[in-house]
Amino acid sequence: MAERRLGEFEIIDMFRGRGGHRHDWVQHGIGDDCAVLDLGGERSLLVTTDLMVERVHYLRDAITPWQLGWKAMAVNISDIAAMGGTPRAAFAAAALQPGVDAAFLEGLRDGMLACADRYGVDLLGGDTSRAPQDGVLCLTLLGTAPRDRVLLRSGARPGDVAFLGGPVGLSAAGLWLLTQGAEQAGRLDPAHRDRLVKAHLEPQPQVELGLWLAERGLVTSMMDVSDGVLQDLGHICRASGVGALVAGEALPVDRALVQAGAIGCCEQPWRFALSGGEDYVLLFTAPADHQDALVAGARHELGIELIPFAWIEPEPGLRLFGADGIHSARPRGWDHFG
Amino acid sequence: MAERRLGEFEIIDMFRGRGGHRHDWVQHGIGDDCAVLDLGGERSLLVTTDLMVERVHYLRDAITPWQLGWKAMAVNISDIAAMGGTPRAAFAAAALQPGVDAAFLEGLRDGMLACADRYGVDLLGGDTSRAPQDGVLCLTLLGTAPRDRVLLRSGARPGDVAFLGGPVGLSAAGLWLLTQGAEQAGRLDPAHRDRLVKAHLEPQPQVELGLWLAERGLVTSMMDVSDGVLQDLGHICRASGVGALVAGEALPVDRALVQAGAIGCCEQPWRFALSGGEDYVLLFTAPADHQDALVAGARHELGIELIPFAWIEPEPGLRLFGADGIHSARPRGWDHFG
Repeated sequence: MAERRLGEFEIIDMFRGRGGHRHDWVQHGIGDDCAVLDLGGERSLLVTTDLMVERVHYLRDAITPWQLGWKAMAVNISDIAAMGGTPRAAFAAAALQPGVDAAFLEGLRDGMLACADRYGVDLLGGDTSRAPQDGVLCLTLLGTAPRDRVLLRSGARPGDVAFLGGPVGLSAAGLWLLTQGAEQAGRLDPAHRDRLVKAHLEPQPQVELGLWLAERGLVTSMMDVSDGVLQDLGHICRASGVGALVAGEALPVDRALVQAGAIGCCEQPWRFALSGGEDYVLLFTAPADHQDALVAGARHELGIELIPFAWIEPEPGLRLFGADGIHSARPRGWDHFG
Repeated sequence: MAERRLGEFEIIDMFRGRGGHRHDWVQHGIGDDCAVLDLGGERSLLVTTDLMVERVHYLRDAITPWQLGWKAMAVNISDIAAMGGTPRAAFAAAALQPGVDAAFLEGLRDGMLACADRYGVDLLGGDTSRAPQDGVLCLTLLGTAPRDRVLLRSGARPGDVAFLGGPVGLSAAGLWLLTQGAEQAGRLDPAHRDRLVKAHLEPQPQVELGLWLAERGLVTSMMDVSDGVLQDLGHICRASGVGALVAGEALPVDRALVQAGAIGCCEQPWRFALSGGEDYVLLFTAPADHQDALVAGARHELGIELIPFAWIEPEPGLRLFGADGIHSARPRGWDHFG
């Protein structure tokens, strides 16, 4: 057969194509934030694995070893949070350059452990190897959730509202400040700059929110925002066989992001926020009837300000509600709008 | 602090140093082939993760994609076998060059799935990423074992015999045929050549043997041979607080390895066999009283020829029994003997 290059989604599909699993203790295989296994007992096992590759996911000059360790742990913990689960144990495999020094390694370890400790996770083992060129970190996280309370992407229904667990776009703005916008960064209020950069380098997975939502029993679908709100809402809609109307300009935008927009990060912060990525806030749907109770409950019990931002509709696809009417939001083109 | 370079074992120790786990459902953390978790129910969960890095663990020209997929799956399954467990589910994370073609990827997937199918494992998910330079495969395997029947490295006792689940040194000879010995390979009987190369590229983890041994209830310690027999027996001895006297020249050596020795692979096949590595046969200890019953049972019930090869003694360290007497086998120097 002729050689041809493959994109990431084609590669994923190729593995998914043979995803048919043979054992009935597999509750859910490929296609959600975690695989879900029923090994007996009251709790399901949640499993997720993620790679971080140097020069692809991080640049060694733009992140401290501590932050790299924190972030690698945090993004995996976020996948457990996205199912309404409790993270339990982490396994780390690292390929490191032969010249890596002790300070780098200690920083990496301490960052992983700080994040693990914050979320009650045990770092239990792993594998280390030499890397000829680029460093690689592969973390696998195990978590648990009550068997009948695992929150999947596939349950969104017309009449639901889609919520965000917090402001979005901050991480993408932080990345901009660390790269293209490095020269303009000095013009930003230091508190805002720190907030944006920290959102990118030290994400805080919303485990407590995920558990709280799972306990309420009102959520119909959930995931975490890693690829960007619109793309991830698209995943939920496709998995659920529905579509959504997304509040465009009406989306509340964090003040730090507004300020970043003013120094050149983006023209329309609300558009930027919807396509940013790496936010690691929860994105979930629940029947509109419960919107007020959920917002008030999260505010009073967790101190979290939920952001209702879209309405689930029967027609597939995403539509964007703006000052000039409703537009179809094409996932491909969308990234180039901001 | 001054920068200095770290070796692999220092890196492992650095992570192990903070291995203290906080949750009582962690039965065993870092330090065995798998971590062992008790999540309730009758079965413990076994977890292992392994990296395969291009130019470190494999060369793309010396292994087919199918074999790479098979081997990555097999070496992880072997870690489950080494605890007496049943492998259940695999999670693969791969960093691949942008130019990787569909045929490579299909081969890789088919090899992983062939091995997974052979051992009843479900491939349930994973992560893919671009690799700027070297490909990386990270597999995580989950298995289960009856809670009171997990076989660790730490139970060997004086008076035990140490056994191998099959011949060793074949994989290392296969690697030699693929690299330094490529020119001499043509002088070998093709059947022997295939046997050695296959041992290196398509290892067959001994899951059935591990389960059979665990059911017998006689085994005091077990692991799989990945670093070489002497080094791995050393791991068992240190974990158990004992030492061993190893049969040197008396070790049965596979005929294919003897022939490889004759064309220049090694001067003393028995020495080569004890230090080769990547054998993925089981190495275990059991009381000497049960030696005959175990050997006869494995032969008749599984068609496997167990190889008793060492005697566990109270004094720490490994001693080697040869024609010229007993010598201390220093793990460092040993590799250079062969």
